[in-house]
Amino acid sequence: MRLITADDLDDMALGAAVLGTGGGGNPYIGRLMAQAALRKYGPVRLIDASELADDDMVVPAAMMGAPTVMVEKIPAGFEVVTAFKKLEAYMGRPFTAVMSGEIGGLNSVVPFTVAAALGIPMVDADGMGRAYPELQMSIPAMIGVTAYPMAIADEKGNSAIINTINNHWTETLARTLTIDMGCSAMIALYAMTGRQVKDGAVLGTITLTERIGKALRTAHSNGIDPVEAVRDVTGGAIIWSGKISDIQRRTETGFARGDATISGLGEYEGEDLSISFQNEFLIARTPTRVLVTTPDLITLLDAETGHPITTEELRYGFRVAVLAIPSDPRWRSEEGLKLVGPRYFGYDVDYVPYEERMVAH
Amino acid sequence: MRLITADDLDDMALGAAVLGTGGGGNPYIGRLMAQAALRKYGPVRLIDASELADDDMVVPAAMMGAPTVMVEKIPAGFEVVTAFKKLEAYMGRPFTAVMSGEIGGLNSVVPFTVAAALGIPMVDADGMGRAYPELQMSIPAMIGVTAYPMAIADEKGNSAIINTINNHWTETLARTLTIDMGCSAMIALYAMTGRQVKDGAVLGTITLTERIGKALRTAHSNGIDPVEAVRDVTGGAIIWSGKISDIQRRTETGFARGDATISGLGEYEGEDLSISFQNEFLIARTPTRVLVTTPDLITLLDAETGHPITTEELRYGFRVAVLAIPSDPRWRSEEGLKLVGPRYFGYDVDYVPYEERMVAH
Repeated sequence: MRLITADDLDDMALGAAVLGTGGGGNPYIGRLMAQAALRKYGPVRLIDASELADDDMVVPAAMMGAPTVMVEKIPAGFEVVTAFKKLEAYMGRPFTAVMSGEIGGLNSVVPFTVAAALGIPMVDADGMGRAYPELQMSIPAMIGVTAYPMAIADEKGNSAIINTINNHWTETLARTLTIDMGCSAMIALYAMTGRQVKDGAVLGTITLTERIGKALRTAHSNGIDPVEAVRDVTGGAIIWSGKISDIQRRTETGFARGDATISGLGEYEGEDLSISFQNEFLIARTPTRVLVTTPDLITLLDAETGHPITTEELRYGFRVAVLAIPSDPRWRSEEGLKLVGPRYFGYDVDYVPYEERMVAH
Repeated sequence: MRLITADDLDDMALGAAVLGTGGGGNPYIGRLMAQAALRKYGPVRLIDASELADDDMVVPAAMMGAPTVMVEKIPAGFEVVTAFKKLEAYMGRPFTAVMSGEIGGLNSVVPFTVAAALGIPMVDADGMGRAYPELQMSIPAMIGVTAYPMAIADEKGNSAIINTINNHWTETLARTLTIDMGCSAMIALYAMTGRQVKDGAVLGTITLTERIGKALRTAHSNGIDPVEAVRDVTGGAIIWSGKISDIQRRTETGFARGDATISGLGEYEGEDLSISFQNEFLIARTPTRVLVTTPDLITLLDAETGHPITTEELRYGFRVAVLAIPSDPRWRSEEGLKLVGPRYFGYDVDYVPYEERMVAH
């Protein structure tokens, strides 16, 4: 157990945006919300999964919707606590701890608000090891944890409890409610036992975000290139660098979708890399070859500062480095690829670990 | 208290379709479902509101969605009981009785399924005295009964509990869930006390449907014109007769919308009446004058048999009589007209009771 104060969240939110692969919400807003909660209610106990009893109840809390909307429709703050409490009341048993559903600029720090407001610990783990756009995309789901019953709440005071026959239906019903609620809402779902956290969650990812954030923040004073500092701490590889020469975006069916073109610079000069996203970056390819696909992580870093760039921050002219990070091995399994492989997202490409693609090239 | 058997439902479903003003679901399907339940579980106790204790809990159960869809997507039968039980579990207090949310071919008999399956009484009352397409359109709402918390369930096994800040938000969230669920779903909502039923519901409407159905069924053997029999028992007026010469329909935003043109015959020869509907018939007018608008009831009767015609049954060539029936006086109040007056539905017409329009003409 470790006490986390408002100041600790700076590194965490920054590092989370690296693993958020462009999605998971705006890191600035997420950090402000969580820091306000920690200043108001005091520090939060961040615990290891190993500190959980097997029958503890742990419940992820998160933002759902298009991050592009969240930038202008800032959550009031209480609605994520409302969602969490509504689910707890519905399930009729006390929730021991809160957890991140995914690692992203917003969603890895959102649970701090719940932990602070309710005085419960937060588990150092999440359900993806990255961010993904749809609710059924979950590693604990592979050991039978269900997204439902799920609670959803908006800033106006509307809420719902959803019970479905499978996680895809949870996604379908929650998505249209989210759109009704103004394209963003707060949710609590994937209630699981302590045992299921240990067996099915991605462990240690909150402290990993802190290590990434710290490496980035201290790179300059340590005389290290910030992009290289991030690459090193994540165990990834820089697969491209260049200048954003085109960006197309559209908010449809509640998602922020689009494509960015990065004209190569330096060793990549003369070629264009295209990166497509649905809240998160999903595939990076040139006209002739695929470099990285989901479930491996694709992150755009500012070439100067090493800071991660979310999909909604993408702008023409940005100079960026593209970082690939290996996904959790469970995503690379047959079952994992059914949930989040390139074909699920409509790309006619087989998944090949990006490390193998690099060697082949 | 009176015991209702499967056979009693024939007249009730028929009469309900008259008050359903073209909507409220298909009477044939509603009757089949309820009769199957009564044959399986035994008769249902139909009670007067006066038999309720003031603190009894009474909850309407209904179908939500586009009746046009219901014809092809017949409910499995259990989902309305699921919705009712889910809301009861959520509210944490036993529901004493079930009630109709509206009078319509389907929705005035749907509660019989719940009453039979759960062995609870059904109250001889409803929330509208007719059918209307949106959830916030409710007479008990005028005394402060809220649509929420509301339960919704589909035939696949998906369900949700909705809690909102007002009835319009309940309608919004439930409507998109209904669309996700395949454009029809079963719901339980407007939970109210026995006191609120007595003060705020439309009383005696189930036995009224039976009287209308019986008058229609026995008209021929009594030597009475069936259309006149219906007019007499409802206290309405025949405002048009003719032949359907055009019918436009579209299913949009979860509703069955459209317009029917009725070319006048007999004393109406040479003029066309246009009737617009959103699940229910809402306005009847010629190119030069308005004859009836919501909240007054507009019902199309088969000119030969006197049988009511639902919006989804409308066909070119039908010979029909158009019956206007005065609405419950509470709908004619300022508050009622805000909920269901012609302007709410987008018609640039002031409400005038149809009796006054007839005199003026």
